[in-house]
Formats: sequence, structure tokens, C-alpha cells
Amino acid sequence: MKILAVNAGSSSLKFKAYEMPSEKVLVSGNFERIGIEGSLYTIKINGEKIQKTLPVETHTKAFEILMNELKELHVIESFDEIKGVGHRIVQGADHYDKSVIATDEVVKDIESLSDLAPLHNPAACAGIKAAKEVIPGATHVVVFDTAFHQTMSEENFLYAVPMEWYKEDHVRKYGAHGTSHKYITERMHDLLGEDKRLIICHIGSGASITAVNNGKCINTSMGFTPNAGLIMGTRTGDMDVSIIPYIMERRGLSTSDINTIINKKSGMLGLTGFSDMRDVRKGVQDENKDCIVAQKMFRNRIVDYIAKYYFEMKGVDAIVLTAGVGENSCEDREEIVSSLDFLGVKLDKEVNNSIAGFKDVQEGKITTKDSTIPVYVIPTDEEVMIARDTYSYII
Amino acid sequence: MKILAVNAGSSSLKFKAYEMPSEKVLVSGNFERIGIEGSLYTIKINGEKIQKTLPVETHTKAFEILMNELKELHVIESFDEIKGVGHRIVQGADHYDKSVIATDEVVKDIESLSDLAPLHNPAACAGIKAAKEVIPGATHVVVFDTAFHQTMSEENFLYAVPMEWYKEDHVRKYGAHGTSHKYITERMHDLLGEDKRLIICHIGSGASITAVNNGKCINTSMGFTPNAGLIMGTRTGDMDVSIIPYIMERRGLSTSDINTIINKKSGMLGLTGFSDMRDVRKGVQDENKDCIVAQKMFRNRIVDYIAKYYFEMKGVDAIVLTAGVGENSCEDREEIVSSLDFLGVKLDKEVNNSIAGFKDVQEGKITTKDSTIPVYVIPTDEEVMIARDTYSYII
Repeated sequence: MKILAVNAGSSSLKFKAYEMPSEKVLVSGNFERIGIEGSLYTIKINGEKIQKTLPVETHTKAFEILMNELKELHVIESFDEIKGVGHRIVQGADHYDKSVIATDEVVKDIESLSDLAPLHNPAACAGIKAAKEVIPGATHVVVFDTAFHQTMSEENFLYAVPMEWYKEDHVRKYGAHGTSHKYITERMHDLLGEDKRLIICHIGSGASITAVNNGKCINTSMGFTPNAGLIMGTRTGDMDVSIIPYIMERRGLSTSDINTIINKKSGMLGLTGFSDMRDVRKGVQDENKDCIVAQKMFRNRIVDYIAKYYFEMKGVDAIVLTAGVGENSCEDREEIVSSLDFLGVKLDKEVNNSIAGFKDVQEGKITTKDSTIPVYVIPTDEEVMIARDTYSYII
Repeated sequence: MKILAVNAGSSSLKFKAYEMPSEKVLVSGNFERIGIEGSLYTIKINGEKIQKTLPVETHTKAFEILMNELKELHVIESFDEIKGVGHRIVQGADHYDKSVIATDEVVKDIESLSDLAPLHNPAACAGIKAAKEVIPGATHVVVFDTAFHQTMSEENFLYAVPMEWYKEDHVRKYGAHGTSHKYITERMHDLLGEDKRLIICHIGSGASITAVNNGKCINTSMGFTPNAGLIMGTRTGDMDVSIIPYIMERRGLSTSDINTIINKKSGMLGLTGFSDMRDVRKGVQDENKDCIVAQKMFRNRIVDYIAKYYFEMKGVDAIVLTAGVGENSCEDREEIVSSLDFLGVKLDKEVNNSIAGFKDVQEGKITTKDSTIPVYVIPTDEEVMIARDTYSYII
């Protein structure tokens, strides 16, 4: 059975086609600049990359091009071979604690949550509608980035703000990267068994840490929005909120200006001029003082959350590092693990240095046998999680 | 030698007179509603409380009344017996890492920092000027609530925001309650010696936690403003800053509305309708669901910061609880200490229950002999700290 996992943005569409249940990747790729001059289409098949520039006015057009391309490449012989399409949805609020069939009612409901994800939810709905039009025979499933975090208790998802902000304006912690945290949780179950306390650090240019106990999310660092928690490539993370009215007054900024700055011009970029940790690390090698300080801030904040969740769960059975930085940066991993040496956590340098996404070894335990807490590197895979959830509605 | 420790607000003046170096309190009291109809004056001497309603138009008038009262009560025979006046200043920014003589230049400089403490610094300067006018023979010293925190490293005081917010707009962590944290640090030195790692929890209706190593502040939970860090009586503490532009848009709030709400209508008050932890605890007894959740949030956030600083200092030699809640609430202390049981921290229930500000026993170690980390209750005393710093400039 063939299943498509898709992620629709306002002018983009990422896709990955799987053979299920083997989870073999058939093709992957993306459309860029949908509805904009110079639309671009990239598809990878059998290690080969095909790129085309062609007009793509709408998401519907994108799905049509994709399906015809799949036929031409002999991935499918007819459209109805695609039995399921899984759609990534950023914000399901507290309406969804698991993936569901994308009925018209559900799509309407996701649209109604657009206030909470103004850039993402409307685009995702456009994607669902387009996919349903082009592949009406498939089962369409929506997979929410927030669903995995719905097991948090009230004391962990509420903010200390006027209660009507929660009751009337839906201000609470929703979390994000849930599909990734769920994937890692399942993989750790395979490795260690189910009844474990995990601290999962998804550290990419967006970053979040989740405390998982017995397979359930207890707490997570992202909040009402993905700007919360850790310091990221361009985001502030949690901080003194009084800074916002002060700086708005002082610099004459609007709420929209502020949203742009705290989400896209802060974090590593605000501190150093670089949003990518690889550039920050290069800056550190060149003894750039801002980079040295920013790198410490970035790592310290990660350790802060490990500390918080370690105390919250009264210990931990394994710590996992994943996503861009987690999977590839031996230096950041070494620094994070070293911060835990006082607990008896011991890095296995050789294993740590052997793991990086571009190398053969991509998964492993980077602590020694006598380390009090094992630390793992596990590559995340949100797309396969979407495919699995979709598959579960078809079989 | 007699020294006055004062704390001037915009319409208030608190004072305490000391015999130094014995630190004997001679009188204490305060003026309320200065410049407002119905000014009130309270003074305590030898356990007796005198209260008067009389017109107090200005801070100068308040100091005149106070000095004449001190003569009448035979605390002093002439004004020049007051050799020093110590003035509490909320915001010294990064200009002051210790108490200094209140020269005209210093007063001007403190006024120039009013943007960072619009309610407090102008009032404090009015207090200094008035005191200098009425007691010109005394040495006037300014004691900053921020000075103790000036030893923080850059990675601990910077925010992950555009660097120009720091360089041009002075957005960084300054901390607060420094005079209290310094007092506790000195007291712990008396008890345990100097080279210790301390986590000092100043938990009142305002609350902050400081990590101290070797007598120096390493990190503190209050930030650019006192709204940062912990959840307080009426303040949010750190959170997802994206909530601010969202709620401003959604509710049509101005920056000034937001400042009022996050500082005066949030925290326990926003969650439960009660700003005082005693009322919240009563609510919990009455099975008020909001109070139950809010109390957990309040305590969990304290434990989060203990966790953070425990990891940051790679262990801790003593934890101290102080201020209103810390000194008086056995229940909150028990709950906080119980959260640390997995580390081998063991509460001594009997000692814990015997300590409260209104009882005879006010200081003590509330953990058992075999507790891995000792936890102390130490009553704080910001006024005596102000008197000490002032005295140090006279002898």
C-alpha cells in the first residue's frame, strides 16, 4: 500500500511517498513558490534528484503535477494506488489528542483555529482541500503537532495570567514538534521498553524539550506558540514579558513588528548575526565574543530544561538528542553531556564523534556503560510518523 | 552611633532607626499617603505603636515630622545625632555593583535610570533630596537592590533578543531583592563558612531565587524587571512572550494596560482571585479547584529554579527559604522540600512546624541530619543590611 505524507505551507508543499507497512521511502520532494513567479519543483527518487521550474498557481495544481510525475516515474500506475494521505497540522489546540480522518467538519474546525497559527493552519487546510480534490479515493488523515502534548496536566499547561485569557482567548501551553517527540518515544520503547522516563531534546533551528513518562508527555518547553522555552535560531524562548511593552514604547513598535522580531530576528540571530548554529560555532572558533556568549546561552538553556524535567520526574531513565543540532553536532552534544558530569553522566567520546547525519552511523548511545544516565542520539522522522498514523486508519 | 534606613515610595516613606554597630532597632515605622488627603504616620518604639493622621505634603515634611518625633521620644536629643541615612534604591542598572555615597552626581544618575524603574527611582530620589535637606549633617548612602547581582556573567544576564536592545535600550537581566539575598548570604557565611554554593529562595508576594557561589551571585530569577522568573502574588513570571502581542491584538490592550495586567493582575490573583498565598491555601482547604492548580504552579516554579541552579552550580551546599512565605508557611516549605526527596533531601517535620515569623523560633535547619542537602529558614532583614552598608561609609 502506498501512502503520501504531506506538509503544506502557504507557498510550499513538502511530500514523501511510502510503501507501507514496510515504511520504504518511494520518493520525497517539495514544491516552492506556489502561486509566486518562478515556482520550483524538486523530487528525489532512488538517490536521484529531479528539479523543474514550472508554473504552479495553486496547491491543487501542485498535487496534480505530483501525481502525474509519480505515474511517469512508475511509482504508481494509477492515482487510486495512493490509499492514504497524511497531512501535517501545526495547531490542533485542545480539540485533538490524536490524528483523525480529515472530514469536512474537521477541516472547518482546523480553519477555526487559525488565530492560534495564522501562518500555518489556513495553508494546511488549503493543502487538504487540494489533495482531496486531486486524490478523492484516498483516506485523508490530519496529524497534529500538538496532539502528543495533550496529556499535560493543568498545572503544566496553564500560565499565571488572568483566567479569562485561557477561558476566552485560549491562552495556554500547546507545545509543538509533537510528531517528532512521539516518534522518538516509540523508538525509545523499542530500545528500552515502555515504562521509562525520557527527556527528549529536539534541537534544530526550532527546538523543544519534552518530558515523557510511560509514553505520555508530562511537560514540554514550547508553549502557547513555538517561540517559547529554548533559545533558538531566531526565537527568544521564554523570558521576562515586561520587556515587550517597554521596547514597544521605547522603539515605537507595533504588535506585528514585535511578533516579527521575537520570532524571526531574535535568538542566535539577534545575539550574533547568525541564525545557524554551524555559523555560530565557526564564530566561536574565530574567537567572536558574541558567538562565544550566545553559544553558552544556547547550551545552558537546554541544560536548564533537562534540570527542570529531571526534578519534575524525580530522575530520568534516558536523555535523547535529536533533530538538526542534536543529530549532527558532536560539539554541542559533548558540551551538554559534560554539564551533567556531576550526576555521573559520562560521555563516550568515540561513539559521540562517530555519529552525525551525514555519516553511516546515525543512531547510538553516546554515554559509557557506567554512565548513571544513558544519553542517546536518535534521528527523528516526522514524515514516517505521519505515514504510520495514516496507515492505521486504513488497515 | 545612630543610623536611619529608609525606603521612599512615591507616596510612602518606610524607616527604621538603628544603634550601630550593635544593630539594635530603636524605632521603625512608615508614612502613608504622602501628598494625598488623609496622610498617615505610624511609629513603633519599645513594642508600642503610635499612629497619627496629619497632613504630610512632601517627603521633606515627612522627614521633619520624623526627626521631631525622634526628639520627642528621646531617641535622639538633636538632629545631628543621626550620623547616617541609608536609602534603598530599586534600580542601579549596571552602574553600581555596591552601595555608594549619595552625592548630587549619583542622585542625578539614579534619576537618569528612571526609564528602567519608573515608579521607584524618581520617588527614591525625592526621598534622598528631602533627607539631605532635613539632615544635612548625616552621611547619605544609596543601597541598590540590583548591586548584589552585578557579578552575573554575560551569558546569564543577556536575553536572546536583538543586541541593540541591550546596547541602546539597556535590556538585560538586573535582578532584584539583592539586599535581601546579600543579607542571607552573609548570615549563611556565619553559619557554614564562605566557600559555599547556596540557592536562596526569597519567597514573598514578590519572589526571587538566587544562585550564590563563594559569596557571589551567579544567577537570579528576576530579570529586566521584577516581573520575571517565579510566579508571584500578582506577577506572571517568565513565559512565552508571544502571548503579549496576541492578547494585545485580541483584547485591544495598550502597552500600559499590559504592564498593569502582567504586574498587578496576574500570578496567583489572575489564576484564583487571591493574591495572598494564605488565601490560596485556604482555598485549597475548601477544595477550590483553581487554588489547587495555582498552588501547584507556584511551588513547581520554585522547584524549577532550584533545579536550574542545582545543575548550574553542579550541586549545592545549602538551600535557604526566606521572606513572607519562606519564613512563615510550613506547608509550602514541606511541599518544596518533599519535591527534593529523590535527591536524599529529608524534611525534619518537627523543626519545620516550629518555625514561623510569629513564633519564638524564627531561624533553623528544617532538614534531618542525614539529609543530603541542608535546607534552612532564615528571616531576611533588608533594613539592617542598608544600615550596615551605611555604617561602613562612616567608620
